[in-house]
Amino acid sequence: MLRVSCVCNPTSHSGTVMSPQHDPATADRIQFSFDRQQMMHTLGATLLAVRPGEVEIAMPFSSAFTQQHGFLHAASTTAIADSACGYAALTLMPEGTEVLAVEFKVNFLAPAGGERFVATGRVLRAGKTISVCAGEVHAELGTTRKLVCVMQATMMAVPVA
Amino acid sequence: MLRVSCVCNPTSHSGTVMSPQHDPATADRIQFSFDRQQMMHTLGATLLAVRPGEVEIAMPFSSAFTQQHGFLHAASTTAIADSACGYAALTLMPEGTEVLAVEFKVNFLAPAGGERFVATGRVLRAGKTISVCAGEVHAELGTTRKLVCVMQATMMAVPVA
Amino acid sequence: MLRVSCVCNPTSHSGTVMSPQHDPATADRIQFSFDRQQMMHTLGATLLAVRPGEVEIAMPFSSAFTQQHGFLHAASTTAIADSACGYAALTLMPEGTEVLAVEFKVNFLAPAGGERFVATGRVLRAGKTISVCAGEVHAELGTTRKLVCVMQATMMAVPVA
Amino acid sequence: MLRVSCVCNPTSHSGTVMSPQHDPATADRIQFSFDRQQMMHTLGATLLAVRPGEVEIAMPFSSAFTQQHGFLHAASTTAIADSACGYAALTLMPEGTEVLAVEFKVNFLAPAGGERFVATGRVLRAGKTISVCAGEVHAELGTTRKLVCVMQATMMAVPVA
Repeated sequence: MLRVSCVCNPTSHSGTVMSPQHDPATADRIQFSFDRQQMMHTLGATLLAVRPGEVEIAMPFSSAFTQQHGFLHAASTTAIADSACGYAALTLMPEGTEVLAVEFKVNFLAPAGGERFVATGRVLRAGKTISVCAGEVHAELGTTRKLVCVMQATMMAVPVA
Repeated sequence: MLRVSCVCNPTSHSGTVMSPQHDPATADRIQFSFDRQQMMHTLGATLLAVRPGEVEIAMPFSSAFTQQHGFLHAASTTAIADSACGYAALTLMPEGTEVLAVEFKVNFLAPAGGERFVATGRVLRAGKTISVCAGEVHAELGTTRKLVCVMQATMMAVPVA
Repeated sequence: MLRVSCVCNPTSHSGTVMSPQHDPATADRIQFSFDRQQMMHTLGATLLAVRPGEVEIAMPFSSAFTQQHGFLHAASTTAIADSACGYAALTLMPEGTEVLAVEFKVNFLAPAGGERFVATGRVLRAGKTISVCAGEVHAELGTTRKLVCVMQATMMAVPVA
Repeated sequence: MLRVSCVCNPTSHSGTVMSPQHDPATADRIQFSFDRQQMMHTLGATLLAVRPGEVEIAMPFSSAFTQQHGFLHAASTTAIADSACGYAALTLMPEGTEVLAVEFKVNFLAPAGGERFVATGRVLRAGKTISVCAGEVHAELGTTRKLVCVMQATMMAVPVA
């Protein structure tokens, strides 16, 4: 399923940690797209890791994105889970394509309280047009880590405009 | 299904427009909770209407909440759809309860471009613990209006802390 | 959005009731595909109506398809909701295409008890590849009718093999 | 999270294989409920394994439950995934409770062709009222095994009537 295979430099110039076996062009392509997502910038989110079929995105806690009980709003954790799933799908799509969310579904397992939130998106099925991904977000506080939400998402490859 | 029935003042002090047949205490309760959602404040969102079983929330376009193509990020429209669904459920829940999202699923139908985005949440089933809601977000540009996403959500009543 | 426009015969040879403005070839195409769904045959399901962007399917109660409390199993009502959504999407797809479910999400609102169950699938967005549909199933008992589940589904056009 | 801890007999009288650390009363309770699901009987489904927080259900291919291309209908694989998720949740619920599906979402990854289909349901979060589960169905053909669908489901504990 994985089409990317060679990597010379496991850390991209942008600081994203990549696993071996990963094409740096793919990581660059994703970092480039990520950098244009103002929503990620606004949330203070960063690309933590790009691997073939898997992407991690982190964001700090910020009271600007909370709901009425002071936890992160469902949409905040959804934002990084969605982008992690979308970019995970993009790692396995051909060059010259971008990715759009067709739909996603999120279950909220625990209040999103913590210092840092890490979303992981993984590809379950990589198709020419449609990819299916699983996402999860963990809240980190000191050395503890809890699962706060899980996503099941459908992503679509579209030609770069 | 609707438990609220009398309204003396169709416009609450906070400017939210209410339909007849609506209990102002319910609208106040929702406005109070809404005002504590920092996420809504950050998005520039406002409560547009509170009716028994139905809530509308609007937000302006802002480039701070966009994805890589300059449209609103999926999470932005999801944020107002989620809050509209949650508060729609809350209109039919007993006093002394708050509402939490158990889960939601969103399909994205069109790029979220426009000047203003209006989310409507409606209760499909009001239960003692679990309510099921349908949400939709329309993008408005001048006199045009297009449906950009639809949500199906499960909300849960929890006692006020 | 609707591409079909002329109808000479509002009832197809197979007994499916069609609305005016509907192309009989489309209804035939759907009846033909429906007849090859052994699952529909096994459930005793019938195509009740085919309209551009909307399809209705009915099935009788049968204890063979129940869960542990004697109500229809979630999968039974899901079956007719899925097929209704898929065929609703197919009414708006070009000739030479078939339809596959990419995914669906179903909320269960009430126990599926009754004499007859009627699923309605409606297209919310008809795309060249991807269509988004809303489905619902009502249980009928005598003259009463209750909503038992709602579906939000993504359908995909595929070339006929 | 797991409340069951002691097992004397890793195989229940009904032939269900249980892992160590599992309370046979729980397995019996699930087998008892499963046996009353006529839908499972109709599909030829059997309980393959009951572990704390995880249940497996298998069904053979049958042309009676197929869609128009001769693969199992989406609702057939959904049926066993739903029951596997529900019973996985039930393994962690207190005695005197039954389980109902609040909602589920399923993505279809590959055509459901094969000789046998095995659904696995796992609990992601076990709550007093609400549990969240992940399900998947693999199709088996000879020695090959492929993932055909994944489910994300919300289950609810209800008192036994």
